[in-house]
Amino acid sequence: MNKKGELAIIGAGIAGVSAAVYARRAGLDFLLFELGLVGGQLLFMEEVENYVGVEAGIKGDAFANNIKKNLKSLEIEPIKEKLTAVKIEDKDIILNFDKFSYGVKGLIIATGAMFKKLGIKGEDEFAGKGVSYCAICDGFFFKNKEVAVVGGGNTALEEALYLANICSKVYLIHRRDQFRALDYLKKRVSDKENIEVVFDSVLEEIKGDQVLKEISIQNTKTNEKRTLSINGLFIAIGIKPNTDIFSNLIDLDEAGFIIADQDMQTSHKSIWAAGDCRKRPLRQLITAASEGAIAAVSAYKYLKGTYISA
Amino acid sequence: MNKKGELAIIGAGIAGVSAAVYARRAGLDFLLFELGLVGGQLLFMEEVENYVGVEAGIKGDAFANNIKKNLKSLEIEPIKEKLTAVKIEDKDIILNFDKFSYGVKGLIIATGAMFKKLGIKGEDEFAGKGVSYCAICDGFFFKNKEVAVVGGGNTALEEALYLANICSKVYLIHRRDQFRALDYLKKRVSDKENIEVVFDSVLEEIKGDQVLKEISIQNTKTNEKRTLSINGLFIAIGIKPNTDIFSNLIDLDEAGFIIADQDMQTSHKSIWAAGDCRKRPLRQLITAASEGAIAAVSAYKYLKGTYISA
Repeated sequence: MNKKGELAIIGAGIAGVSAAVYARRAGLDFLLFELGLVGGQLLFMEEVENYVGVEAGIKGDAFANNIKKNLKSLEIEPIKEKLTAVKIEDKDIILNFDKFSYGVKGLIIATGAMFKKLGIKGEDEFAGKGVSYCAICDGFFFKNKEVAVVGGGNTALEEALYLANICSKVYLIHRRDQFRALDYLKKRVSDKENIEVVFDSVLEEIKGDQVLKEISIQNTKTNEKRTLSINGLFIAIGIKPNTDIFSNLIDLDEAGFIIADQDMQTSHKSIWAAGDCRKRPLRQLITAASEGAIAAVSAYKYLKGTYISA
Repeated sequence: MNKKGELAIIGAGIAGVSAAVYARRAGLDFLLFELGLVGGQLLFMEEVENYVGVEAGIKGDAFANNIKKNLKSLEIEPIKEKLTAVKIEDKDIILNFDKFSYGVKGLIIATGAMFKKLGIKGEDEFAGKGVSYCAICDGFFFKNKEVAVVGGGNTALEEALYLANICSKVYLIHRRDQFRALDYLKKRVSDKENIEVVFDSVLEEIKGDQVLKEISIQNTKTNEKRTLSINGLFIAIGIKPNTDIFSNLIDLDEAGFIIADQDMQTSHKSIWAAGDCRKRPLRQLITAASEGAIAAVSAYKYLKGTYISA
């Protein structure tokens, strides 16, 4: 079975949903695809406090429910099909799904990214209950409290510095005996009084009851064990965008993020990217929602051959 | 009386409020200034349907109330003072208000813009009740209905084309006998079957009861009068950013919009801009909120000398 339309949107996290809302309101003929649940990263968030317009402290699943309702109010039904291949034939983009193919003139990629996990006991159990993967998102919940950051790259050091400005104490735990971060970040970390660097150490377990209470770490050289009482743990060991399937069609950066301009246009003129799958200055819900809107309006302009400046 | 701080945010529309939320959560020492009410353009909107996460169809004043609560939850109290002058002294930015001066290291400008009005009878009365200044925002409310656009520049033609894709009929009314728009837009307008161009005509009055019902127009050459029954009227005769007071400090475009990069940094390294006062690809609530967040995180990076990539 083959379908045809003007536009496909892949992914129903907040970027894809925002794109769908703008596409529908612009009168485009499109389908929205999501293999999992509507909401993307929202489904892994305990609460959200920094998305203006939405009540501070809203639970992640309630927020996801809100954006599901946004789709429903415009009668947009996400299609639960796995994208298996994408190819370009002349001016058409052919998307192969398990059960059918969909030929379109434009494509918005909003497939998100996944934070790398430590894979230790307690990590999933306390996710959103003390364990976080984003300091700007969740740091403020630990104001004047003690936290730890795990990792040794630029992001880990940046997150430690961000948290040191809010929290009373920050442990920065790294499995090697030096950071692989930029020198000025290393200097700032060593200058910061309330950051304690813990080298040569790996996390063994995350413990608590309702919320995270402590972590046990082991020194890889001495085998010595240590328990740290903390309120928050920020895991900053990497993020992987869900872009593999598009890698032969459009330009990605070295980490796999899609390169797109301020109109969200990628290196292919009829493909746009929005949200966590895109290389961008600030990885947040509100920026993802904005990028989805911009991508849809850019697609509208391209597909209808018009430009709208408002 | 003189005060000092790290950062000032001017304007408490959605861009300024989003900036304040991110600045507070990053632990910055800042003040938020707003001479009018919190909410900016929201206060002039009848309903909002395209801001994901927020219930579709929310009234503008209810939305404004939401963002007021966002400020309250972080104990941010906007200061009702008129900015009278801004000057730069070495690395300090000195903001003069009626009652005091505020010296800061960084400034976020989120002063918004104002749509130009026709200044005719019924325009204010039916604003948000059929009269709109933004097709992408409000076009969908008039799906399969008849609307009119007033104006003769690029924006007016783009809005007419956008609306022609959604509405059954679009009158495009212009006071002169030709448009001052780009040729390809003129061609697209003339190709579009459901756009009726009405040259040499000015609006005299906007009429209705609860909502807009009709407009009366007059031909400036023949003096002939005509009444058009429409559901929506889009006024696209220009927009003026509130940036005069900053014009000697930072680069503006020819229309007065602030030029700022994707980090929202202006031509002055410690001044950022967000929302309608900035030249940007898509003028929407969601993009303004996103820009406010980015501006605040950029200010944080600059003020703390760190960089956060997340």
